[in-house]
Amino acid sequence: MVRFDCDYMEGAHPEIIQKLVQTNLEQTPGYGFDSYTKNAERLILEACGLKNGRVFFLVGGTQTNVTVIDALLSHCEGVLATEAAHINVHECGAIEASGHKVITLPEHSGKLCADEIEDYASRFYADETYLHMVFPGMVYISHPTEYGTLYSLSELERISEVCRSRNIPLYLDGARLAYGLASAASDVSLQDIARLCDAFYIGGTKCGALFGEAVVIANPARMPRFFSIVKQHGALLAKGRLLGLQFETLFTDNLYSRIGSHGIEMAMRLKSVFKQHGYKLFFDSPTNQQFFVLPNHVIERLKENVSFELWGAPGHEETPVRFVTDWATNPESIDNLDKYLSEI
Amino acid sequence: MVRFDCDYMEGAHPEIIQKLVQTNLEQTPGYGFDSYTKNAERLILEACGLKNGRVFFLVGGTQTNVTVIDALLSHCEGVLATEAAHINVHECGAIEASGHKVITLPEHSGKLCADEIEDYASRFYADETYLHMVFPGMVYISHPTEYGTLYSLSELERISEVCRSRNIPLYLDGARLAYGLASAASDVSLQDIARLCDAFYIGGTKCGALFGEAVVIANPARMPRFFSIVKQHGALLAKGRLLGLQFETLFTDNLYSRIGSHGIEMAMRLKSVFKQHGYKLFFDSPTNQQFFVLPNHVIERLKENVSFELWGAPGHEETPVRFVTDWATNPESIDNLDKYLSEI
Amino acid sequence: MVRFDCDYMEGAHPEIIQKLVQTNLEQTPGYGFDSYTKNAERLILEACGLKNGRVFFLVGGTQTNVTVIDALLSHCEGVLATEAAHINVHECGAIEASGHKVITLPEHSGKLCADEIEDYASRFYADETYLHMVFPGMVYISHPTEYGTLYSLSELERISEVCRSRNIPLYLDGARLAYGLASAASDVSLQDIARLCDAFYIGGTKCGALFGEAVVIANPARMPRFFSIVKQHGALLAKGRLLGLQFETLFTDNLYSRIGSHGIEMAMRLKSVFKQHGYKLFFDSPTNQQFFVLPNHVIERLKENVSFELWGAPGHEETPVRFVTDWATNPESIDNLDKYLSEI
Amino acid sequence: MVRFDCDYMEGAHPEIIQKLVQTNLEQTPGYGFDSYTKNAERLILEACGLKNGRVFFLVGGTQTNVTVIDALLSHCEGVLATEAAHINVHECGAIEASGHKVITLPEHSGKLCADEIEDYASRFYADETYLHMVFPGMVYISHPTEYGTLYSLSELERISEVCRSRNIPLYLDGARLAYGLASAASDVSLQDIARLCDAFYIGGTKCGALFGEAVVIANPARMPRFFSIVKQHGALLAKGRLLGLQFETLFTDNLYSRIGSHGIEMAMRLKSVFKQHGYKLFFDSPTNQQFFVLPNHVIERLKENVSFELWGAPGHEETPVRFVTDWATNPESIDNLDKYLSEI
Repeated sequence: MVRFDCDYMEGAHPEIIQKLVQTNLEQTPGYGFDSYTKNAERLILEACGLKNGRVFFLVGGTQTNVTVIDALLSHCEGVLATEAAHINVHECGAIEASGHKVITLPEHSGKLCADEIEDYASRFYADETYLHMVFPGMVYISHPTEYGTLYSLSELERISEVCRSRNIPLYLDGARLAYGLASAASDVSLQDIARLCDAFYIGGTKCGALFGEAVVIANPARMPRFFSIVKQHGALLAKGRLLGLQFETLFTDNLYSRIGSHGIEMAMRLKSVFKQHGYKLFFDSPTNQQFFVLPNHVIERLKENVSFELWGAPGHEETPVRFVTDWATNPESIDNLDKYLSEI
Repeated sequence: MVRFDCDYMEGAHPEIIQKLVQTNLEQTPGYGFDSYTKNAERLILEACGLKNGRVFFLVGGTQTNVTVIDALLSHCEGVLATEAAHINVHECGAIEASGHKVITLPEHSGKLCADEIEDYASRFYADETYLHMVFPGMVYISHPTEYGTLYSLSELERISEVCRSRNIPLYLDGARLAYGLASAASDVSLQDIARLCDAFYIGGTKCGALFGEAVVIANPARMPRFFSIVKQHGALLAKGRLLGLQFETLFTDNLYSRIGSHGIEMAMRLKSVFKQHGYKLFFDSPTNQQFFVLPNHVIERLKENVSFELWGAPGHEETPVRFVTDWATNPESIDNLDKYLSEI
Repeated sequence: MVRFDCDYMEGAHPEIIQKLVQTNLEQTPGYGFDSYTKNAERLILEACGLKNGRVFFLVGGTQTNVTVIDALLSHCEGVLATEAAHINVHECGAIEASGHKVITLPEHSGKLCADEIEDYASRFYADETYLHMVFPGMVYISHPTEYGTLYSLSELERISEVCRSRNIPLYLDGARLAYGLASAASDVSLQDIARLCDAFYIGGTKCGALFGEAVVIANPARMPRFFSIVKQHGALLAKGRLLGLQFETLFTDNLYSRIGSHGIEMAMRLKSVFKQHGYKLFFDSPTNQQFFVLPNHVIERLKENVSFELWGAPGHEETPVRFVTDWATNPESIDNLDKYLSEI
Repeated sequence: MVRFDCDYMEGAHPEIIQKLVQTNLEQTPGYGFDSYTKNAERLILEACGLKNGRVFFLVGGTQTNVTVIDALLSHCEGVLATEAAHINVHECGAIEASGHKVITLPEHSGKLCADEIEDYASRFYADETYLHMVFPGMVYISHPTEYGTLYSLSELERISEVCRSRNIPLYLDGARLAYGLASAASDVSLQDIARLCDAFYIGGTKCGALFGEAVVIANPARMPRFFSIVKQHGALLAKGRLLGLQFETLFTDNLYSRIGSHGIEMAMRLKSVFKQHGYKLFFDSPTNQQFFVLPNHVIERLKENVSFELWGAPGHEETPVRFVTDWATNPESIDNLDKYLSEI
């Protein structure tokens, strides 16, 4: 069975496993007060070009989104996001469970449009009844998006500008950031993100770590007591050093970049295989998630040898599907996929 | 100044005021354990044709919606409603603040469509990832809707049927129910609502009471500990008899019907005045809220003598507006409105 | 039946009823944007000696406590209160339901001790693990307390001093404030409270209003968006003028003081009746709640003609009981009580 | 430096590390739908003697407590626990942040007393005002407790009996369960716990795993949608197999027992060292946390070579301290501690 279900099917990149083995019996303080975590924070701030930032390490993506969003929002504020946003669809209402509304705007290939954010805010305050409504309190974007697409630098700059003129923080979910940064289609660097966002996270779970997400906070004064907020959300890892060790490794010898590049290379190869076989794209994604529309009988045949996700409820004759590559994807897997497609 | 801002600009219907004065110095137990409240409950259950129901009295609409919805939803469940639903727009995120997502479906003249509810539920459970999503846990409708429109009996029956086949409760927000029941366009009776919904509220605040909403629960076993839930939401009135007294009066000598009929009569007269002056409807509402699209210069002139609400943010040349009548609307007010429109 | 169950058994003081009747058909904007509400705010700020404060009017006590406490607390903060505090015992977990911990300290005749607040805060920050704990974020006191007792001016000043040195707001629940201010045992004025607290409420429901509590905020910058927070808690009354009208009346011609004085006079008379009959006090309360310990057979006999509350679960041979007077208590009721006690 | 700060200073037991290395490049489905997780569940249910139970794997203790307690409680219910309970003190208000009150009872060497639970429930329902109070909805105990102490089998049976007669679930926090089961002082087996509790967790983080806690649910019908509740709490690990792999290893070849036994052996040796040097116990703990009261000057000297935690805020002359052993504690560390104590 060849598997393209998601980017968290294996353990961790071998360099990370090696580091965990090497340090296993060392004794360190808990909760991120160890030297590995401090070092990882330093390396990440350097990579981001941030002087006065802070970095906190959490375990998973939903947890990170809920915790950061809760920390950023005040009374009666909600978070603006696309209808397709992970926080709106696939986090089981975690944002609402922590008391906040997800205010949805249309998605354009998975992306928010800066003008629509500005328009929403402007119409909001022009409405005589706005004191009875949920205030737009922050903006959530994902990069790459849920559809694998990427913001261009100018799009990101424009969103940041709108947010700053309205004084609402901009938060970027970088669950698959390694692949976004490595994409040939991207003109956005890690430093750009650090400069334009108020908070964002650098995804580890889907980018070569066993688990873990690094929350980068450009202006820590905006999120006081974040450590305790993390604890309250049940998101504080006792052996914090496990996160520090992993991100220290990811940000040493360009490992994070190498992981991203490999995932992208595999994704582009996979895309061209499908195109060669004449299948159409559902979205044209420049990153490690690839979306196609396949006839249902092709899906059925393919499932005998290949695993992948249907994208939403099945259609009558054809159904959108998602194929995902990552740091561990083997070129042979794609050759095999090619072969299986040829046999249908 | 002639006022059509809303249906809660005056105090209460004189029969209610009289009752409060008469009973003022009587001593009764608190929290709704008095005989007036018991009697009001009995009268309402009779009017609804419910044998085993319960009625609880709360103070206001947002409070009632939040409390009932919180009581009806379980873990990881959200409430289906239109995008325009009061709970989605004008309750400052109260539903989310109590931990639940409002899942929005399109509105059709302010109404939910039964087939779209069924389609949502059906696609939800067909999605392989549904365990990561907010479950459709109940349906919220308003009758009249936020746009003054009404469900027909067959529409309501079909929605009820979908809900029951999915085993999700149907809740109806009857903030303006008196006007809905009295509308010539309506084929829905109070008994129909009681038969088709699991819970609903009979609006008092906008229908002649000083304040108060009567929550009717068809099957009390579905909402255990509702009294304590009301208390926890800060919605339990110490002098509960004030609510009992008012609803006892509203359901004596057909007062609730008389109030509804008067409001509707005034609304229809008001609508014809605007039509005679050639202004177009924004929605064609058969109840006590009337919506027109007026040129901005007409709005400006009219505002010198008449007060009313803009409906959303102002447009460039013309803007939707809302005019509301109620139990207290004076026919002379409408004559005056007619005169002012003639002068523009 | 003579009734001393609580201070919310009747409607409202006749001057308030009269005002509601007189103004019933006037048209005013909703949500407290009417002139009566503005005037009530002005009168209360004058009575409090506050120049830059704000006053908001809510319907009931639990609702008010939850809303103010939610507005005052930040992330990971809890509210310090006595074990016996209304918010800890009799609000069905409303504070926790809005996400905040009630941190309890011992009660001394129902009161918090300033030194114990300081000691708690000091030990809290001396604990190496305090980042894992709920921060002491504000102090809640009631005056009169749940046991009818009163803070002396020096006690209140000392608590205020501790709070200000720790920069945590002090909030006073004045559900029965009229009786506290009128007690001969009190050296605390309304101006003292306004000077020493960051927020407090002047109780209406138990002090002659039909319903309503006036939240006085000394420094509104500490509670931004309070209007919207009130709305989100379902605590915004549509016909806000009903609250404005009542508090305007209460703060005209010393009505609030007259109400307090009458309640106290009746309470002292009631206390002396019990003392004359040889029954012992459970607490020595100087306000309108009086607590005695009665043998169970006396309770049983008395209940034939007099209604009152048991204070907690019944004891084996004797049980604490509570008798309450208010603005409406009739001297004859107390004479009758005297007679019934004589007959036992 | 010799370290006894806590039981999560190292990585994981070597057998676990080895398993992670061996399986690192295998591909498995996410979220616990892999065969390692299924196998771990099977092994644990066997060890517990449960036929129809379920096991879910979460990452950390606070997260586990919050998620399970949220799943078990209904509207207006709180969780009974000792004042010293981890959920009451050291989880930053996580329980309250999810909407529930922690109702505290006195602790007796860290333990709840069954009679006091029964007495609380009995007095609760005897109170005329109980509908205004938080219902006792479940019982939380920790075993070993926060003070290292253990429930005897008869104590546990009696608590379980009270809970079942009241129909409130009993939940046991087994963060350090390996040490509790291995203690010579214990007559409670894993099967006893599974028989007497409705839910409990087998701690991994402090008992040899890298991280992870196994929630055992005796009667899954009592906690419907638990998977989605875990997701909503941000507690669902993407690479669920990491948890499965670890617990499969812990429950193979008695590893969990061996880990417990080693920790206990080291703890008893450590306790006897302190006793030989004449220091007094703060609690007499039979498990891997040991508490002593040390003069402040001894603490100061010892801190030069040994790290450990102060237990609460420092005292004037002496301070309680905690020393913790675990699966990785080296006998030489204790010899060194002995030597350092001799030199003071």
